[in-house]
Amino acid sequence: MSDVVEKLRARLGEAVRADEDVLDAHRRDTWMLGELEDLQGADGPRPLAVVEPADTAGVAEALRVCRTARVPVVTYGGGSGVVGGVRTGGGEVVLSTRRLDGLAALDPNDGVARFGAGTNGMVAERTVQEHGFTIGHWPQSIELATVGGLVATRSAGQFSTGYGNVEDLVLDLEAVLPDGSVLHTRPTPRASAGPDLRQLFLGSEGTLGVITQVAFSLRPLPEATRGQCFHFPDLGSGLDAMRRFVQAGWTPPVVRLYDTKESGRQFADWCPQDRCLLLLIHEGPGAAVELQLREVAALCEAGKGAPVDAAAADHWLENRNHVPTFRELLEKGIVVDTIEVAATWSRIPALYESVVASLEEVEGILVASAHSSHSYRSGTNLYFTFAARPEPARMADTYRECWRRTMEATLAAGGGIAHHHGIGRVRRDWLAAEIGEGGVALLRSVKRALDPDDLLNPGVLLPDAD
Amino acid sequence: MSDVVEKLRARLGEAVRADEDVLDAHRRDTWMLGELEDLQGADGPRPLAVVEPADTAGVAEALRVCRTARVPVVTYGGGSGVVGGVRTGGGEVVLSTRRLDGLAALDPNDGVARFGAGTNGMVAERTVQEHGFTIGHWPQSIELATVGGLVATRSAGQFSTGYGNVEDLVLDLEAVLPDGSVLHTRPTPRASAGPDLRQLFLGSEGTLGVITQVAFSLRPLPEATRGQCFHFPDLGSGLDAMRRFVQAGWTPPVVRLYDTKESGRQFADWCPQDRCLLLLIHEGPGAAVELQLREVAALCEAGKGAPVDAAAADHWLENRNHVPTFRELLEKGIVVDTIEVAATWSRIPALYESVVASLEEVEGILVASAHSSHSYRSGTNLYFTFAARPEPARMADTYRECWRRTMEATLAAGGGIAHHHGIGRVRRDWLAAEIGEGGVALLRSVKRALDPDDLLNPGVLLPDAD
Repeated sequence: MSDVVEKLRARLGEAVRADEDVLDAHRRDTWMLGELEDLQGADGPRPLAVVEPADTAGVAEALRVCRTARVPVVTYGGGSGVVGGVRTGGGEVVLSTRRLDGLAALDPNDGVARFGAGTNGMVAERTVQEHGFTIGHWPQSIELATVGGLVATRSAGQFSTGYGNVEDLVLDLEAVLPDGSVLHTRPTPRASAGPDLRQLFLGSEGTLGVITQVAFSLRPLPEATRGQCFHFPDLGSGLDAMRRFVQAGWTPPVVRLYDTKESGRQFADWCPQDRCLLLLIHEGPGAAVELQLREVAALCEAGKGAPVDAAAADHWLENRNHVPTFRELLEKGIVVDTIEVAATWSRIPALYESVVASLEEVEGILVASAHSSHSYRSGTNLYFTFAARPEPARMADTYRECWRRTMEATLAAGGGIAHHHGIGRVRRDWLAAEIGEGGVALLRSVKRALDPDDLLNPGVLLPDAD
Repeated sequence: MSDVVEKLRARLGEAVRADEDVLDAHRRDTWMLGELEDLQGADGPRPLAVVEPADTAGVAEALRVCRTARVPVVTYGGGSGVVGGVRTGGGEVVLSTRRLDGLAALDPNDGVARFGAGTNGMVAERTVQEHGFTIGHWPQSIELATVGGLVATRSAGQFSTGYGNVEDLVLDLEAVLPDGSVLHTRPTPRASAGPDLRQLFLGSEGTLGVITQVAFSLRPLPEATRGQCFHFPDLGSGLDAMRRFVQAGWTPPVVRLYDTKESGRQFADWCPQDRCLLLLIHEGPGAAVELQLREVAALCEAGKGAPVDAAAADHWLENRNHVPTFRELLEKGIVVDTIEVAATWSRIPALYESVVASLEEVEGILVASAHSSHSYRSGTNLYFTFAARPEPARMADTYRECWRRTMEATLAAGGGIAHHHGIGRVRRDWLAAEIGEGGVALLRSVKRALDPDDLLNPGVLLPDAD
C-alpha cells in the first residue's frame, strides 16, 4: 500500500477507503468516452484510495497530507459529469464529498439554505420545498449531482431563463484551498469588496480547491405554474419570437425551442410535422403568470407562432429527466452525446446550420439536431445532440470527430463552446479559442499561485502547457 | 525628468503629459480625506507623468515600460471614486483612460453596446438611448464616472433592484494585464468554461490590470415608468414589506426606504413627520407596470404602509444626483461621508440601530442616518450618512472614527462592510474581516501571480502585509 494511504489513514481513519469496489466506483464520471472504454474492456486504472471526510477539517487534512506527499487529488461529487472532469490515471487520491451531506441551516426569513457540498441536488431541492421554498435550479442531472458539483461545473438549470443559473443562486460558499486553508465567503446579498471570490470556484472543476459548503438564496414555491406551447415554421422565426419577449422583459423560467427534428422525435403527438416546437413554463404570483402567458402569446402569434396543446409542456415536465443511458446505446454500437454552446442572437441561426451541416458529414451519422433551452437578453444556447453508428473499431474516433466538428463550427460562427457541462477533458483543447491565449495564461497563473505542484484534478480544464 | 517618463515619451509621444496642471488634476479621486488634506494645504505629491493612451496597444506599451522600470501605475478613470482608490505618492505614472473613449459597436438585434473604458457613464447611457435602449445602470456618479471605472469598482446603480448591478450588465470586457498581455473575454451570453474571468476585474480597483473596453447587455427603453410611495411607522415595518414583495418576485427597479431622519430631511413636503418613506419606481411593459404597482401596493398596505403622493418619487428622480460637494461642507468645518454596507434581512434592523448608536457617540456628530436603496431576495443594503463638526484640528480623526465605528458595528451585526464604492484605502483595514484571512491570502496570491512587483495601484484594496 502506498505511503500516502497510510498517512491518510493515520489522520482520517475509517474515512479512507481502499476496497476494490469503492476504488472502482470512483474511477470516472459518466463521460461517454469513459463508458466506451469500460465497455471495450479498457477499464482505466483505479485511484490509490478514496477519502470521504466527514467535515471541512477532514478535507483540509486530506489535502495537506496529499500536498506534502505530492499526490494528486481528484474531487468526486455525484459522478454525473459528462465531460471527463473525473478520471483517474492510477496515482491519485479521490476525495469524495459524500459525507459532507445535508442541510446545515435554513433561514425562512432571509430565504437562505446552507448545505454540505455533498448533498444530492434533488435532496436539497426537496428539503427546501418542505419549508415552502425552491432553489429553482433544475439541471437534468439533479437526481445524481451534488450541490458542490453543480457549483464546481457552473451548472445551468432547466428553469434558468427566469431564475438564472447556479452562479445567480449561490449566496456564499466555503472551499478548502490546495494548501489546506479554508475560504468562507461572507453571506451578504452583494459586495464590492474586491473581486467576487465565489467566482473562482464556480467553474473551477476541482482544480482550485474543494467546495465544502454552499448556501443558496431561495425563492418561495410559485403560487402558479402554467405551460403553453407554439409551433413555428422554422428555427429562425421561433428564435426571433423568443428574442423579442425575453428582451422585452418577459422571462418565463422555461423557454425551449426545438428544431424540426427534435420536435418530430419528441413531440409528434402535439406538434405538426416539420415545425419547430416552442415550449414555455411560466411561474410566479398568479396574476403575473396570467399576464405573462397573455403577453408572450401575443408576441409569439405576432411572429409566425401558432398555438399547440399545452399538454406538450406537461409531457416534457414529466419526462424531462428520463434519458437513455449512454451504455444502452453504446451496446447497440451507437456513439451519442450532447454538446451545449451559446451565442448572441444574431449568430445563432448560422451557427445551428453550420454545426448540423458539419455533423452530417460524419460517417455513420444518425442524428444531428438541437434545441435552445436557456435564453438571455443578448442571446441563447444551443443544445446539440449527435448519434452515429460507425464501424465498431471507429467508435471513439467518430465520437471525437463529432466533438471537433461542433467545437470548430461553433467557434467559426462566433459562438462560445461551453454553455454548460464545463470543459473537463473533452473541451480543453479548445479553451484557448474560447477565452484566448491571454485567458489561458491568466487562468494558469491563478492555478499556479494556488496549486504550484498541479495536484488538484490535473489534466482537467486547462490545456497541456506547450 | 525621470528616466521612465523619457521612455514612455519615446513609445507614446504626445500621450505622455507632464504639465503641472495635468499632474495636479490626477493626484487623487474625490475621497473626502484627500479633499480635506488639500483644503488644509497638504496637497499630496504629484505623479511623474500622466499617460493617456489612445488605444489598447498604447495601454499595453505603457504597462510594459513601467514594469521594466519598476514604476507603479495608477489607473485614472473619471476621478469620481470616494474611497481613495486613486491617490499618488509621488513616484507613480498615472494611466488615464480618457482617450479610450466612445462607442465601438452597437448591435440593436442582440442589444449589445461596446464602449471604450474611458467613456463617461452618462454619455454611454445617452448613446444607447438614442438607439432605443438603456444600460439601466444609474450610479449617483454617472455624470462623472467612466464605464471602466464602474466595472473596476463593482458599481451599484439606483435601478439595481430590478436591473442588477454592473456585474449583471457586462457581457464581456477587455483588459490589459500587468505584463502587457491582453485579455478579451468572449461575447457570449453565458459560459461554463472555467471560472468567469470577467469577475477578476469587476472590483479589481486597478490592482490586476487596466480595463480598456466594456460591452453591456442592454434593455429596451421601458414602455412605462411609474412611481409610488408609502410611509411606514418605522424602518422595521418598511423593511418587512420590501422583503415580502422582493421575495415574492416583484422587483421594481428602484426601491428606497429612508429612516425617519432622512424622510424628514428630504421628503418633508410629502411624508408625515417621524415616518419612514418608501419610494418605488416601476418600469417595463405597460401592463406589467400596472400589475406590479397594484400588487406591491397591496403588500405594502397589508403591512403598515400608507400611501404618500407619488410626487415624492418625481422629486427624487429630478434631484437624485444633486449633492453638495464635500468641499462646501469641509469649508464649514463639517466632515461628512456616506458608507454603504449590506446584510441579510434578519440582520438589517439591529445593524441599523447599532451603527447609528455608535455614530451618535462621536464628538460633534450632527447627522447619523441611513436609507436602504438596493434590495435582493436575501437582504438589502444600508447607505449611512454621517456628518460631524469636531474641533478643527480633529477633522481627519473624527472622519476616521466615524468610519471605524461603522465598519466595526456592521461586522459585529453580521453585515458586509462594502455594498458598493469598493475598498480603496478607507476600507482596506477591514478587508480581512469581510472576506476572512483566507480570502485575503487568496487575493494576495492572485495579485502576486499577475503583478509580482506590486506595481498596479499599490496601497489599494489589500491591507498591508504583516
